Amino acid sequence: MWIFLNDRFVDEKDAVVSVFDHGFLYGDGVYETLRAYGGRIFKRDEHLARLRRSGRMIGLEVPVPEKDWPALLQDAMRRNGLTDAYIRITVSRGAGEIGLDPALCPRPTVVLIARPFRAYPTHLFTEGVRLALVSVRRNLATALNPQIKSLNFLNNILAKQEATRAGAFDALMLNADGVLTECTTSNLFFVRHGCLCTPSVACSILDGVTRGTVLQLAREHGIQTEEGAYTPETLLEADECFLTNTTMEIAPVRAINQTAFGSACPGPLTSRLRELFHQNIDRFLS
Amino acid sequence: MWIFLNDRFVDEKDAVVSVFDHGFLYGDGVYETLRAYGGRIFKRDEHLARLRRSGRMIGLEVPVPEKDWPALLQDAMRRNGLTDAYIRITVSRGAGEIGLDPALCPRPTVVLIARPFRAYPTHLFTEGVRLALVSVRRNLATALNPQIKSLNFLNNILAKQEATRAGAFDALMLNADGVLTECTTSNLFFVRHGCLCTPSVACSILDGVTRGTVLQLAREHGIQTEEGAYTPETLLEADECFLTNTTMEIAPVRAINQTAFGSACPGPLTSRLRELFHQNIDRFLS
Repeated sequence: MWIFLNDRFVDEKDAVVSVFDHGFLYGDGVYETLRAYGGRIFKRDEHLARLRRSGRMIGLEVPVPEKDWPALLQDAMRRNGLTDAYIRITVSRGAGEIGLDPALCPRPTVVLIARPFRAYPTHLFTEGVRLALVSVRRNLATALNPQIKSLNFLNNILAKQEATRAGAFDALMLNADGVLTECTTSNLFFVRHGCLCTPSVACSILDGVTRGTVLQLAREHGIQTEEGAYTPETLLEADECFLTNTTMEIAPVRAINQTAFGSACPGPLTSRLRELFHQNIDRFLS
Repeated sequence: MWIFLNDRFVDEKDAVVSVFDHGFLYGDGVYETLRAYGGRIFKRDEHLARLRRSGRMIGLEVPVPEKDWPALLQDAMRRNGLTDAYIRITVSRGAGEIGLDPALCPRPTVVLIARPFRAYPTHLFTEGVRLALVSVRRNLATALNPQIKSLNFLNNILAKQEATRAGAFDALMLNADGVLTECTTSNLFFVRHGCLCTPSVACSILDGVTRGTVLQLAREHGIQTEEGAYTPETLLEADECFLTNTTMEIAPVRAINQTAFGSACPGPLTSRLRELFHQNIDRFLS
């Protein structure tokens, strides 16, 4: 496997960073996960724009010029013989003396990893997953805004560990106010009285690219949508529920803790949105 | 410089970790900062105990047996010709496939860096520092408990950046409830009506080793102490204020934003505690 590191492709065994890299010392950096279908990347430019936005929010400039990314991403796939790929871009503050000041690091570290895309097991989409409503709360937006897709992932890791102990697929987190947010690597949707609901960005969530796509497709097809602040009780009374992220696209949720949703899983609107997603995917690839 | 990496000492240029190390991908790990005086380490066993405790709180076992640390720390100093040293121990989840699950990483990464101790400029202790009360709030304890000394440091980095923009030495953060917590790498103390006050651990702070030492010395010498939940207004009416951490020991605070403290800086109790600290330090070294 070839990995792009700063200015060139290196073999996986040489893809290393200094122990003084502030990405390693402090999780000081940002990242993006992208998915390629047949050699073309889903909403590539939106992911790259979010990478820059995340960087700006921590005062970190992405050192690769915008115009260089398309060829670089293609190169990463070609060198690894990939067409259906999982791609992770990491930009850390870089190596520097120990200390919190970003000025200690003269040059950010850039890592681009492209892997074969591993399809999820079919039953995930035909039977749905079970979530655990966990005690770990989502990060406070005024402490570390979840809109920053950063290398500080312990909040999510602690939530995921709690879900795993409960035998669930993933953790659903509330914010400090007890309002629904998101799962550890996906956004939450649910259907209530025919309306497609999802926590608003103001509830302390990542502004997911696939989340935005699902809202866009729903609106284009006359499905009523609502972004708001919801309690767990509201969710438990919903008719359907699903998760979105770049790799799973749309994954139905069967139950929260021990409470299953009313309708069959996947529910009718969940299935319809999955169809719309696949029918429309071509226009989102580049 | 020789750095201990996993199982041996390596040259600084070979002290590298895989880009798949979850310390780099997610800040998934814990650390400690220690200080050596004349070859002996301040409260060594307390630091090592906290390292283990931080690890346990994220489900990470420190792979170096407790009994091996004293010789290892001495070895790190000897190989680098150090007696007055700054030492950082980092334990990350280790290298593994991309994903939040700690089970992906078979072996934690251990890094031990020993550097010459660089003394702070004298004026820091004779004139005191100015803090900025920043808008960045301290991490929610139910999201990522500040008692975990983890590699997720972006909350503190964002606060420090805000303080730097304000021309201050460091940032003083409030918690979600608007109560005083700590600075980016130090605990806060203040003196009010002769009583030594410090935010309690329940306010979302790190249970600092030097903080504990100062409380211990104060109690041994009949100084009244109080750990509580304090508002910024209470602090601004204080007579004295200082910070504690392993490297600075006790550093007087001259002002918060543009408000200077009433008494001369350093204040009389601050100076007395610094004296007590140095008079008693020998019994804390090993």
